[in-house]
Amino acid sequence: MIYERITLIGLGLIASSIIRAAERGGLAGEIRGYDLSDEARATAREIGLGDVICDSLEEAVTDADLVILAVPVGAMGGLAERIGPHLKPGAVLSDVGSVKGSVVASVGPHVPEGVHFIPAHPLAGTEHSGPRAGFAELFDNRWCLIVPAGETDPQALAGLRAFWEGMGAHVDEMDPEHHDLVLAVTSHTPHLIAYTMVGVADDLRRVTDSEVIKYSAAGFRDFTRIAASDPTMWRDVFLSNKQATLEILQRFTEELFRLQRAIRQDDGDLLHDYFTRTRAIRRNIIEAGQDTDAPDFGRGAVRK
Amino acid sequence: MIYERITLIGLGLIASSIIRAAERGGLAGEIRGYDLSDEARATAREIGLGDVICDSLEEAVTDADLVILAVPVGAMGGLAERIGPHLKPGAVLSDVGSVKGSVVASVGPHVPEGVHFIPAHPLAGTEHSGPRAGFAELFDNRWCLIVPAGETDPQALAGLRAFWEGMGAHVDEMDPEHHDLVLAVTSHTPHLIAYTMVGVADDLRRVTDSEVIKYSAAGFRDFTRIAASDPTMWRDVFLSNKQATLEILQRFTEELFRLQRAIRQDDGDLLHDYFTRTRAIRRNIIEAGQDTDAPDFGRGAVRK
Repeated sequence: MIYERITLIGLGLIASSIIRAAERGGLAGEIRGYDLSDEARATAREIGLGDVICDSLEEAVTDADLVILAVPVGAMGGLAERIGPHLKPGAVLSDVGSVKGSVVASVGPHVPEGVHFIPAHPLAGTEHSGPRAGFAELFDNRWCLIVPAGETDPQALAGLRAFWEGMGAHVDEMDPEHHDLVLAVTSHTPHLIAYTMVGVADDLRRVTDSEVIKYSAAGFRDFTRIAASDPTMWRDVFLSNKQATLEILQRFTEELFRLQRAIRQDDGDLLHDYFTRTRAIRRNIIEAGQDTDAPDFGRGAVRK
Repeated sequence: MIYERITLIGLGLIASSIIRAAERGGLAGEIRGYDLSDEARATAREIGLGDVICDSLEEAVTDADLVILAVPVGAMGGLAERIGPHLKPGAVLSDVGSVKGSVVASVGPHVPEGVHFIPAHPLAGTEHSGPRAGFAELFDNRWCLIVPAGETDPQALAGLRAFWEGMGAHVDEMDPEHHDLVLAVTSHTPHLIAYTMVGVADDLRRVTDSEVIKYSAAGFRDFTRIAASDPTMWRDVFLSNKQATLEILQRFTEELFRLQRAIRQDDGDLLHDYFTRTRAIRRNIIEAGQDTDAPDFGRGAVRK
């Protein structure tokens, strides 16, 4: 057991997975949950999520040793303002937001003296949402980035690290600005691009929706999976990580125009060299253990 | 049995999967294979691919009832020119190229009188290449588009359709021009975009390669999988389907600029509406049976 009592606020995919994983690892004496939505609270009770699902924020956070904010990034500041006065001295306040600079800026001012604010970001997810979407294995072998906001108590930091490791994750530390740039490259911009491509397919009148859907096996299907992620969460991500996302988008567009020009000018050598280089990057990811080279291309359980 | 003797030319992922699937279904009396590469032929013999791996094109195609060209699109014309004189009258000549207009144009003129040329395109693949990459289940529940080039003998067409259905595929017919537009949307442009994004990540000096690789769990990993596909095949696809790819890229860029502008101007409503719409498309794909909604996000066998 790492914490006597932990509280999750916002009972979506990530919070419900944290609860399952913390239960699996025996990491907390008591697990409380709260969600603004009546429906989410009812569902959480129905599926037996945690020990207590509370009907008020105050009840949820009072006496908690660890409080994790698991709401869209744009809602973090207002939430912190409401719970701040009820946090126990010595408690750790953390979050799971995909952007860290804006969370530090919006939550930080509401953290009372004596409470340890330590932002974090587990790099794990699926395209599903809500309390039913969680599962204990979500963080196994995934990275959780802990992003201390300034001076941080070493013991509080060690506790949060142990908690994430107890849920199966590998932990790294990073400063907020660098985190937001890295994520703009590895996650935010790819998501925006996938959303865009799926939107283009939908707009195109000369290719019917049913054709797009029927023939999506090669390439497009993976984009639709990414583009099915939670709309509110992703709206907030882009608005909160505006600067880094726009910078990476700018570079992406430049590169895309280079390849587009190569196609227009029949420059096969440029294309072949480019595709050979990107193939090597894939190999490195497999070697780093972040994916498998099983030839499924997302096929999985498609047999039916 | 549908054909007495079939021949695969080019022993890569698709041909080796066709051989495995045809064996599984008992679709051919004898299966011959040929590849220009000594190494591929040696590998094919070593793993027992088909009945005979031939050392010459002439030997491979003589007396075959069905010859399938499974080489990069740019190599189809030259190959057809070489085998044309050796094809048996009444034989069916087909292919598996991802672009159909250019294949019709480059192969068509070399098809001798009495041979039935019926292009086809199975919408299935993985990011792996070569004779070892094939497996019998690759076409199960996938679409194969048959793209007749003008007047086609109904009996020859029915035979090829039965062959693909025997390998587990669903078959549709489409004309070459429409095929190339549909594929530009569902496959070719998504691949180019994935290649580009992976290239951008690699170029970015401020984010190290090892960071990109370590933290690729969310979004980027799916792009690298797409961007690991065979460079020669994809170079030829883009050069052969130039017009449709450039048109879709143009629309993609317009849409991307619209979302980029929304981010810059804090237009959260536009982003939220857009992402809600793309999520619905994903739901349609799952309902169409082209993917599963298992919450794996490509995780599969990552536990190790």
